[in-house]
Amino acid sequence: MDFERLLSTIRRHTQLTEQEEMKLCAILRIKKLKRKEFLVRVGDDARHEYFVNKGCLRTYYIDEKGTEHNTYFAIEGYWLSDIYSRTFNTPALCSIVALEDSELVHIPNIALEELLIDVPALERFFRISYQKSLATIHLKQIQLLSMNGCERYNYFREKYPEIDKRVPQKHIASYLGFTPEFFNTVRSKAIREKVLSSAKVGW
Amino acid sequence: MDFERLLSTIRRHTQLTEQEEMKLCAILRIKKLKRKEFLVRVGDDARHEYFVNKGCLRTYYIDEKGTEHNTYFAIEGYWLSDIYSRTFNTPALCSIVALEDSELVHIPNIALEELLIDVPALERFFRISYQKSLATIHLKQIQLLSMNGCERYNYFREKYPEIDKRVPQKHIASYLGFTPEFFNTVRSKAIREKVLSSAKVGW
Repeated sequence: MDFERLLSTIRRHTQLTEQEEMKLCAILRIKKLKRKEFLVRVGDDARHEYFVNKGCLRTYYIDEKGTEHNTYFAIEGYWLSDIYSRTFNTPALCSIVALEDSELVHIPNIALEELLIDVPALERFFRISYQKSLATIHLKQIQLLSMNGCERYNYFREKYPEIDKRVPQKHIASYLGFTPEFFNTVRSKAIREKVLSSAKVGW
Repeated sequence: MDFERLLSTIRRHTQLTEQEEMKLCAILRIKKLKRKEFLVRVGDDARHEYFVNKGCLRTYYIDEKGTEHNTYFAIEGYWLSDIYSRTFNTPALCSIVALEDSELVHIPNIALEELLIDVPALERFFRISYQKSLATIHLKQIQLLSMNGCERYNYFREKYPEIDKRVPQKHIASYLGFTPEFFNTVRSKAIREKVLSSAKVGW
């Protein structure tokens, strides 16, 4: 079973002994999903953490009018869960569906909580990860306040080129909070600006 | 020096030995601010964590047009920092100013990082705190998608009654992303609905 990508992600932040890595691997499972298959449906008991080995997944919320709002995309090397459900033991707020055939590492929450007490280096890894996520959300909040639609789309494409390539455009529009019509306008403008800025005066 | 509130906040999530509590207290300092005094100014080296013993503070970002956007309020028992600056060692993105005379516990980041390696129970406390913050942000993101202006204001008042009482209304309007005019409309509507729902038919 392939846990190497997950282990090397952890090793970038903290050092586990060989025995600690074995303890971690003992609670890990592999989960495979076909495209369009659900990992979590809203209302599920979603008390697990996942790590993406391969593939691409979409997290979304459905509002009272039945409109889907994308809140997160995950590709190789990303962590993934309904964090509210996992933290406060409530039914899932969002659904998570595979956009491509995917392979995930599955960590049951109860086993993870026990392991965190037993292996402080792992507690350290998750503390650093969560702190970085909070810091990144803080930066994003500020950037959104100072960017117009076109700037936000360009920022997304620069920051997440792989997601921009693999996720259907309608889902990116929903993630950015754009209507499909507004997204088309913004996209045309962004492409036009890119072409103009890379064009060379040849005479 | 009064570190009791901070210690009891930590004790709610994790258990420190007497010796560990002493190690923590050894790096803590008290910082007092007068109303309108700045704790952090945008661009500062803001590599510290703070805990509010007493008072009320406002974190805000200034956009390119010079408009202030409030991003966070902190009262007694809240943690406070420019988390991006503290995590990635960059200049502060936001300013933090006292809305009332305030007393804070000041934790220098370098000393805190060293202590977290030395005291795993403290690492655990911050991992749990950050995870809960991320979960709460996830819930808030979803609630914002499904609430109109009036519902958002009512939700804020129910969730943070103490902040609603102590923070000037113009700052709450900015936090909720409302213009002052829209805020006045929403506020009148919220008050009218509250009066109507609590009125008794007496004849």
